[in-house]
Amino acid sequence: MIDLDKDFEMKMGHLSRRTHELEIPVMIIIEGALASGKSRLANALYMTLDAKYTDFFATHPPMEVDKRYPFLYPFWKALPKNGDINIHFRSWYAHLIDYEAQGIKDNIRVDYKYIRDDIYNFEKTLIDRGYEIIKFYVHADDDVKKEHLKALEENPASQWKAEEFQERMDNVNYEKEMEIFLENPTPSPWTILDFKDEQSSVESLFETIFDRLERCIEHREKKKKPNVDGEFIENYKPTLFNFDFDKESLDKDDYKDKLEPLQMRMREIQFKLYEKKMPLLLVYEGMDAAGKGGNIKRTRMFLDPTGYTINAVSAPTEIELAHHYLWRFYIDVPRSGHISFFDRSWYGRVLVERIEGFATNKEWKEAYQEINNFEKSLVHSGAIIVKIFLSLDKDEQLERFKDREKDPDKEWKLTDEDWRNRDKWDQYIQASEEMIFNTNTSEAPWYVIPGNNKRYARVEALKRIVEFCERRLEE
Amino acid sequence: MIDLDKDFEMKMGHLSRRTHELEIPVMIIIEGALASGKSRLANALYMTLDAKYTDFFATHPPMEVDKRYPFLYPFWKALPKNGDINIHFRSWYAHLIDYEAQGIKDNIRVDYKYIRDDIYNFEKTLIDRGYEIIKFYVHADDDVKKEHLKALEENPASQWKAEEFQERMDNVNYEKEMEIFLENPTPSPWTILDFKDEQSSVESLFETIFDRLERCIEHREKKKKPNVDGEFIENYKPTLFNFDFDKESLDKDDYKDKLEPLQMRMREIQFKLYEKKMPLLLVYEGMDAAGKGGNIKRTRMFLDPTGYTINAVSAPTEIELAHHYLWRFYIDVPRSGHISFFDRSWYGRVLVERIEGFATNKEWKEAYQEINNFEKSLVHSGAIIVKIFLSLDKDEQLERFKDREKDPDKEWKLTDEDWRNRDKWDQYIQASEEMIFNTNTSEAPWYVIPGNNKRYARVEALKRIVEFCERRLEE
Repeated sequence: MIDLDKDFEMKMGHLSRRTHELEIPVMIIIEGALASGKSRLANALYMTLDAKYTDFFATHPPMEVDKRYPFLYPFWKALPKNGDINIHFRSWYAHLIDYEAQGIKDNIRVDYKYIRDDIYNFEKTLIDRGYEIIKFYVHADDDVKKEHLKALEENPASQWKAEEFQERMDNVNYEKEMEIFLENPTPSPWTILDFKDEQSSVESLFETIFDRLERCIEHREKKKKPNVDGEFIENYKPTLFNFDFDKESLDKDDYKDKLEPLQMRMREIQFKLYEKKMPLLLVYEGMDAAGKGGNIKRTRMFLDPTGYTINAVSAPTEIELAHHYLWRFYIDVPRSGHISFFDRSWYGRVLVERIEGFATNKEWKEAYQEINNFEKSLVHSGAIIVKIFLSLDKDEQLERFKDREKDPDKEWKLTDEDWRNRDKWDQYIQASEEMIFNTNTSEAPWYVIPGNNKRYARVEALKRIVEFCERRLEE
Repeated sequence: MIDLDKDFEMKMGHLSRRTHELEIPVMIIIEGALASGKSRLANALYMTLDAKYTDFFATHPPMEVDKRYPFLYPFWKALPKNGDINIHFRSWYAHLIDYEAQGIKDNIRVDYKYIRDDIYNFEKTLIDRGYEIIKFYVHADDDVKKEHLKALEENPASQWKAEEFQERMDNVNYEKEMEIFLENPTPSPWTILDFKDEQSSVESLFETIFDRLERCIEHREKKKKPNVDGEFIENYKPTLFNFDFDKESLDKDDYKDKLEPLQMRMREIQFKLYEKKMPLLLVYEGMDAAGKGGNIKRTRMFLDPTGYTINAVSAPTEIELAHHYLWRFYIDVPRSGHISFFDRSWYGRVLVERIEGFATNKEWKEAYQEINNFEKSLVHSGAIIVKIFLSLDKDEQLERFKDREKDPDKEWKLTDEDWRNRDKWDQYIQASEEMIFNTNTSEAPWYVIPGNNKRYARVEALKRIVEFCERRLEE
């Protein structure tokens, strides 16, 4: 036990209550070799924090379940909500070192160096969205570590732990790998604590945290009101959605003949995904009444329901709003071999949030890169991503709205919000086109499909999905 | 693919929108042997439901992570929220059969027959709290199953699945075990679907669901306003909290001498829990300002922070309110070898919810048994549960409130709610005593500790915890 100055506790109480009031999410990362003393430091810190707003998150060696999700999944999932504090005892750094040491490739389908980029981008987007990340590396000389190990060994109750430590110390060259991380550029700086002098390492831990919290509190208090106007151009002329909508049609017989073979291929794709343990994300965006639901229904019709989930995305809940906007999507990503349909998606950030002013200009502009990085990190895990945009013309939407109004079996589908969205048609077109220009990548392409003819749109969307997946599965 | 009558889809749409409006949670369980055709039935059903309110939950053979939590944990976790529908494709029944076949004992420390009781109690408490559970067992003759298997084998993409099926069919005598379940009493009846006649099994599936949904909708619409008055006696005389509060005290030196050895023993307990892979739940209840937080702090002071979590329980969130009241606690139970502290707990049901009228009389009265069953099911998984009640006298509480008011470092701890709670002191005493009488079990005992002297209370609580845990660990 570290004997803690009462003043540290008081000051930490003050500062953490203030970050809580200001709704600043804080992540304190404690890395360090086994038996370096980091556990004692972490505990000293943990004891000063209000349990109501604090989570202690220990990263363990990779388990079976970890390997079924993207590398960063457990850390996204554990993200503190606004005003909360997470202590990460070992973090994505130790996790990646464990992966490399064990040569785990289940959920890393690229060179490990790309995961280092993902980690960089992960920290960057958190910081850009107001998270405070404070990172420590606890260093201890070999004799200090030996002393700690000896203490563990001498207690019969903790002997097994000493053995476990010994085994893991032999296996992983944690310190050498960490050195590379410490030297590389990072969005949030490291503080190195030398455990040789126990007292001064405790002091340094607390002083660093106090300093960082004070600065982020001051920064938040001074923050100016941001611009929130969506930056829309009047009389925007679409360049991408200039279809001859009447051209694309498909009669009933033709539709059946074309649809069923594609549905069968989709089913085979599901089997292959499962076999190769690759996850698939199918993202659908488009105007209200564009036919996203019906489209998804045809795509999944022949699939094994144990292998897919459908995420119908609507307004975020209170808890979702209190997290990074990608959090609620990250926790819904499919596990290996499975398919997730997204009926609307993270692209809401640059569509509805931009249009309705829920995201500031800075936020939606930075979202393009954030989303590209997010999708890239999923692709690194082996994921296939296909994005379908169903485009309707304005007259056809009106027809469909009127249809819904008249039909008692469909009227529940039409809400006041649909009419309000329709009033912002031009803004929606502009936001959608800019979205596609900025996020159409070779790993996760957009397919824009004219949606006036439902049959045509279903066959066309499914065809794009099937062809892209087959290509990726053959690679 | 089953060719589905359009009328089924329409009717299902109507009924499920109505259960959604009425906020009735629905669980549809589909059990059946491998290759029985249940997948096709499940898919036909899934396709008729609105993805927004439906989750398809497939139960897989037990994984490493399952074995680290109580048996029912994945099903509690997956509970639909009010107004949602879950399709459980294989359920707790198939799961238990898998456990028995593989002889898994990691998280089942009792004879499997006790888990059957837990399953009964699980369904019962869900039904009692307004869940609609509709259970199907799909039967198919051997020749029908062979046909299904052949179809899988003939397709090169699904050949591996046929092999997997074959292997699992050989290993587990699923059908024989299910027969016992089908014969035994259950809170929600089974409907058996014979897949010999495919069309009629589909019809029977939908008609059963329609019938059940219509009945529960009607029942909900007719529901009378329940009694919500807490049933408190005027001038209630405590029988349990009649301490001589001044008697129990402890001076500073004595305190230190007694506390530290107990903290060391607590640390050893943590090691042993980890070694034996047993979870520990420490529950703290008591009046406002009784010292629960300070008490917990002393108990955890020497513990390895990677092995415990603290759940500070406050008012439920929107999502928590939309679930069975035990849901938010079940998802926070510790995994094997870990400790969870609960600073307030599920006992809120029979305390604050009773007192404030958030629970009806029927609800809080039934909660005693529900809670006993809940704790019993955790004990079956190997858990140790200790419950501490810190009792304060009314004058001492006033002193502490005033102290907090005066001290700028403590005033944040005192809220208007604390004063409002104080006005209901007598009701709180009555509810607490009745709670203890009704839920003090040998597996999960209550220790009532006079809390006027903080030092005495800390040592005493820790002593009770340590002694109980040591006893359980030696068994």
